[in-house]
Amino acid sequence: MPLYLHDIPLDKAKAALKEALKNADLWRVLATEFIPLDENALGRVLSEPIWAKVSSPHYHASAMDGFAVRAKDTAGATLTAPLTLQIGEQAQYVDTGDPLPEEFNAVIMIEETEALDADGEITPAIREPKEIRIRAAVAPWKHVRPLGEDIVATQLVLPAGHILRPADLGAIAASGHIEIPVSRKPRVAILPTGTELVEIGSELKRGDILEYNSLVLAAQIKKWGGVATRFSITVDDFELISQRVAEAAQNHDLILLNAGSSAGAEDFSSSVVEKLGTLLVHGIAVRPGHPVIIGMLPKLPNGESLIPIIGMPGYPVSAALTGEIFVEELMARWTGRARFELDTIKATLTRKTTSPAGDDDYIRMAVGRVGERMLAAPLSRGAGVISSLVRADGLAVMPRGTQGAEAGDEVDIHLYRTRAELEKTIFCIGSHDMTLDLIAQFLSEKDRRLISSNVGSLGGLVALKRGEAHLAGSHLLDPETGIYNDSYIAKYLANQRVRQVLLVNREQGLLTLRGNPKNVKGLEDVASSGIQFVNRQRGAGTRVLLDYHLNLKGIATKQVLGYSNEEYTHLGVAAAVASGRVDCGLGISAAAQALDLDFLPLFHERYELIIPEIYFESELLAPLFEVIESKVFRDTVSEMPGYEFGEK
Amino acid sequence: MPLYLHDIPLDKAKAALKEALKNADLWRVLATEFIPLDENALGRVLSEPIWAKVSSPHYHASAMDGFAVRAKDTAGATLTAPLTLQIGEQAQYVDTGDPLPEEFNAVIMIEETEALDADGEITPAIREPKEIRIRAAVAPWKHVRPLGEDIVATQLVLPAGHILRPADLGAIAASGHIEIPVSRKPRVAILPTGTELVEIGSELKRGDILEYNSLVLAAQIKKWGGVATRFSITVDDFELISQRVAEAAQNHDLILLNAGSSAGAEDFSSSVVEKLGTLLVHGIAVRPGHPVIIGMLPKLPNGESLIPIIGMPGYPVSAALTGEIFVEELMARWTGRARFELDTIKATLTRKTTSPAGDDDYIRMAVGRVGERMLAAPLSRGAGVISSLVRADGLAVMPRGTQGAEAGDEVDIHLYRTRAELEKTIFCIGSHDMTLDLIAQFLSEKDRRLISSNVGSLGGLVALKRGEAHLAGSHLLDPETGIYNDSYIAKYLANQRVRQVLLVNREQGLLTLRGNPKNVKGLEDVASSGIQFVNRQRGAGTRVLLDYHLNLKGIATKQVLGYSNEEYTHLGVAAAVASGRVDCGLGISAAAQALDLDFLPLFHERYELIIPEIYFESELLAPLFEVIESKVFRDTVSEMPGYEFGEK
Repeated sequence: MPLYLHDIPLDKAKAALKEALKNADLWRVLATEFIPLDENALGRVLSEPIWAKVSSPHYHASAMDGFAVRAKDTAGATLTAPLTLQIGEQAQYVDTGDPLPEEFNAVIMIEETEALDADGEITPAIREPKEIRIRAAVAPWKHVRPLGEDIVATQLVLPAGHILRPADLGAIAASGHIEIPVSRKPRVAILPTGTELVEIGSELKRGDILEYNSLVLAAQIKKWGGVATRFSITVDDFELISQRVAEAAQNHDLILLNAGSSAGAEDFSSSVVEKLGTLLVHGIAVRPGHPVIIGMLPKLPNGESLIPIIGMPGYPVSAALTGEIFVEELMARWTGRARFELDTIKATLTRKTTSPAGDDDYIRMAVGRVGERMLAAPLSRGAGVISSLVRADGLAVMPRGTQGAEAGDEVDIHLYRTRAELEKTIFCIGSHDMTLDLIAQFLSEKDRRLISSNVGSLGGLVALKRGEAHLAGSHLLDPETGIYNDSYIAKYLANQRVRQVLLVNREQGLLTLRGNPKNVKGLEDVASSGIQFVNRQRGAGTRVLLDYHLNLKGIATKQVLGYSNEEYTHLGVAAAVASGRVDCGLGISAAAQALDLDFLPLFHERYELIIPEIYFESELLAPLFEVIESKVFRDTVSEMPGYEFGEK
Repeated sequence: MPLYLHDIPLDKAKAALKEALKNADLWRVLATEFIPLDENALGRVLSEPIWAKVSSPHYHASAMDGFAVRAKDTAGATLTAPLTLQIGEQAQYVDTGDPLPEEFNAVIMIEETEALDADGEITPAIREPKEIRIRAAVAPWKHVRPLGEDIVATQLVLPAGHILRPADLGAIAASGHIEIPVSRKPRVAILPTGTELVEIGSELKRGDILEYNSLVLAAQIKKWGGVATRFSITVDDFELISQRVAEAAQNHDLILLNAGSSAGAEDFSSSVVEKLGTLLVHGIAVRPGHPVIIGMLPKLPNGESLIPIIGMPGYPVSAALTGEIFVEELMARWTGRARFELDTIKATLTRKTTSPAGDDDYIRMAVGRVGERMLAAPLSRGAGVISSLVRADGLAVMPRGTQGAEAGDEVDIHLYRTRAELEKTIFCIGSHDMTLDLIAQFLSEKDRRLISSNVGSLGGLVALKRGEAHLAGSHLLDPETGIYNDSYIAKYLANQRVRQVLLVNREQGLLTLRGNPKNVKGLEDVASSGIQFVNRQRGAGTRVLLDYHLNLKGIATKQVLGYSNEEYTHLGVAAAVASGRVDCGLGISAAAQALDLDFLPLFHERYELIIPEIYFESELLAPLFEVIESKVFRDTVSEMPGYEFGEK
């Protein structure tokens, strides 16, 4: 009877897989292979302990350049009462590393001797004196490296399961080995399936989905010590998929069957597993990643042993996290190493985060230190947003049985980065501008990371008030004074001393499709019937700008069709226009250029960085100002349409 | 005029190298190469930023399997007042990932619809119904992944200098790339020189030194992102070395010239550099590693550009640390990545550590948590002891101008291991027994690390008293009662509750050369003239045993020639005998077997593990008891001569 489970808890799913592997005698190191002792052994895992075959040094060796002596012959020598030793009888020259002649038991450093010639005169011909004069006694075994000082034959040099580092290779060599027993690399077949999938680099038509899950999974396998075979895409055809899986079952240790995201793809996977072997798990209560399938197939051609198969979800974040949760552990067991554990720190959550109580929920987080606090800001939850994994500094796990956490709660973050990297992270929260991407790029060359989170100008000031950012981009126009930012800062940051740094003056205007098919000529047209507009969110500087000019022109917001239709970035507005979903939106020229739109310039505005005094002078932010002042940055921005560097 | 510096401070040496590289226009990313976007890109460093060429998704995509609808058509639908939508006109089936048809702006999940046939009856044929019934309204853009949700064309995907991880490869693919601009791997020539050197695997004669520095350096280069060329050994011949260096200067970016440890080898290196180019630095005030040489050579064949050369010290620890200090930084600069920085923690020093005030001193440390404290115990300082680098959990740096630190001082440790690994470390300080190596091996399979430090039985009890170990191996005989350990524990650990666990009963006896050439038959012979003995250090259980039996036999310690000649382990005693330095010593049978000695059994003794109550029940130590109780451990020990498991 197959054990058939649906959306079971993660720990039960793991236990089911482990149990099946144990029953199949696959919960162990797969096999040993002997490899040459060279630099390619780096990162391989010892499958057997290394016991020393020889000692190192394998003889008593001089640790210095000097003269081997008998300690007792030196007794009594002092600065004022030197002793003279005959070369040959009482002393013998040795280089560092030379064997200590058997009749001697100590070495006097050459710097502490005077070489004498046959007449007893000091001679510079230090290597062939007749005798030497010494002015201090030496203790037995002084400046001698005794046999086995480093390694004694038969001792344990390294245990099985150890991941080889450079110095380890030296110690293995020193202990007399010329090859190393390591665990064979697990072989993993990765089969992407889905009729809608196209190979990387294809010309894209609507509905085509680039197949890169197999690339991410293959890189994970490589990172974790295995070797991946990437199969080409198989369309959604039960027989074809069955054939490919059967093929993969011949020469591999694990099959990852990656379902496309289309409906029924998951069912294809489970049906194939049921047809060819045993379905153990069908769906796991983990987010992202629900539709995970686990089964065991007979290993072809003879079917005497078994091979596990994991049906991976189609969404890229789900697939990658399923790799981290299931596949890394298998690679660890099969190579005999300990699991790669992420370093964990505590951080303060910047936003309330909800989570379904029935699932183990893995939430990607941006993490960094602002002032005294280590902060964690949740990133996009979308399972299709691979860039959220790229931007993630770590994961928070909201376990089954909890419904999330409140802003201000302390949560454990499993880090993708080192703590040192977190200390070099600059948090910029506020209005979005394309030049922030440029700054991020230039900062990366100066050992800093810029994380910019786009919540609009006002959101940025609020983040500064809460101590959740090092700086905020802002272009908030005061409708009464016509001055940017000042009055808002006075209102929202009354208790903080901040600096305002002009980043750029930039043009705002209307974005339309190429050729401006609806013939939008200005704000008046936006208010005319039939024109679908897309707005920015409340608190965005661009929205304040719109409101200001609508007001000047006496246009009511309700006259604007789509006024309540909100996007969070300039590029979001541009994408909405480019897709044909709306006819126009207010934004910056660079966004229009990015998505090949027309741009109708309307206003100039001042885009400033608002920086609390305490960070303005910090070592953390110093490289930011270097970038902003640099010629290469200013030249690059000047080439972007709609930007200029005005008076400060 | 060449800048010629001798034993200069580390920061000056680094500055000199950096300056020379800047002048030669070599302080930069060496070059870009384009590589295919596949899993072999893992770990490579981006030499240019990745800007998105396409958006992802590149169309508005359904995020669910269901029906695309116009949100306004669904207004008013409730549980009790459902609405019916016509397929085609008002709704259209979409799979996850399908493009949203242009006339629609939201998706209703299939689970939230009822499919109706032509007669208005509910039908299970869900993919081809005539109409659907819905019982809830949807908001615009519900269950839609808008164009650019993940990545918007033109945005920064990854900055230059980024080290590629699995998910990054997915994001690069999603943004429309098929190849990646990465920095070319620096090519490093490694030239071992020294007449006394022999290749790994050679049959060893006295005076031969295994050449494995080139192996360690090559593995470092690989780890840091370069490609190493290992030259074969060159004997100490000025012309030959010059030729090989000139050869290496043609096709590489860096030459590492590794001097043998013999006298004058260092001078060969500096002379070769002076002959072929410019010597910048000759000796650096850093420990271990003093004789580091830095220079610049003309890059052959045309000599239009330059190539740096670093003369590496001959001692293996010095060579490896010189790599970490100088070469890693070059690899970082040349590939454009940030430096690999070690995580740093604070730990309490267990022993006073002296350091020359003139040097930056890098001290290898064993690090782990005992109770509430993170402890750092200095390892061997010998520059020839590569096993100290293998055993090191981290480095403490005693900077120039300080003379070390006191026991109990808090020091910064730069970690070679993760913090999680440190939490799994069991510190065993005390008497040495060969079975501890075996336990270490078996423990490594159970996610624990055993670090055993051999300071003798009494030293172990003192370490427990100071809270510096989780357990101690002890075999201290009370001469008055004939009982092991109890009276010592009562005296030294009066305020602690400890458990005594019998590990083994073992034989102690006299170790002599094969054939027992001096015909030593018992303790009486040890006291006879002409027999050179080697003792264990004060506080060692073996020494107490010796004293006990000497006393029983009425032999005075001064009758034993070499009584004050101390070794710290059984293997140390065995090595002293094997080398012919002494005639015999008291030790365990396993040590005799290890170095192929004769063993004359004399006494049995009880070897116990002394474990404070608080650790006895801990999760940390649980696997230790599993090992000790395991059949495989007991079987393995039983096969070792001189061991038996007695009554507990």
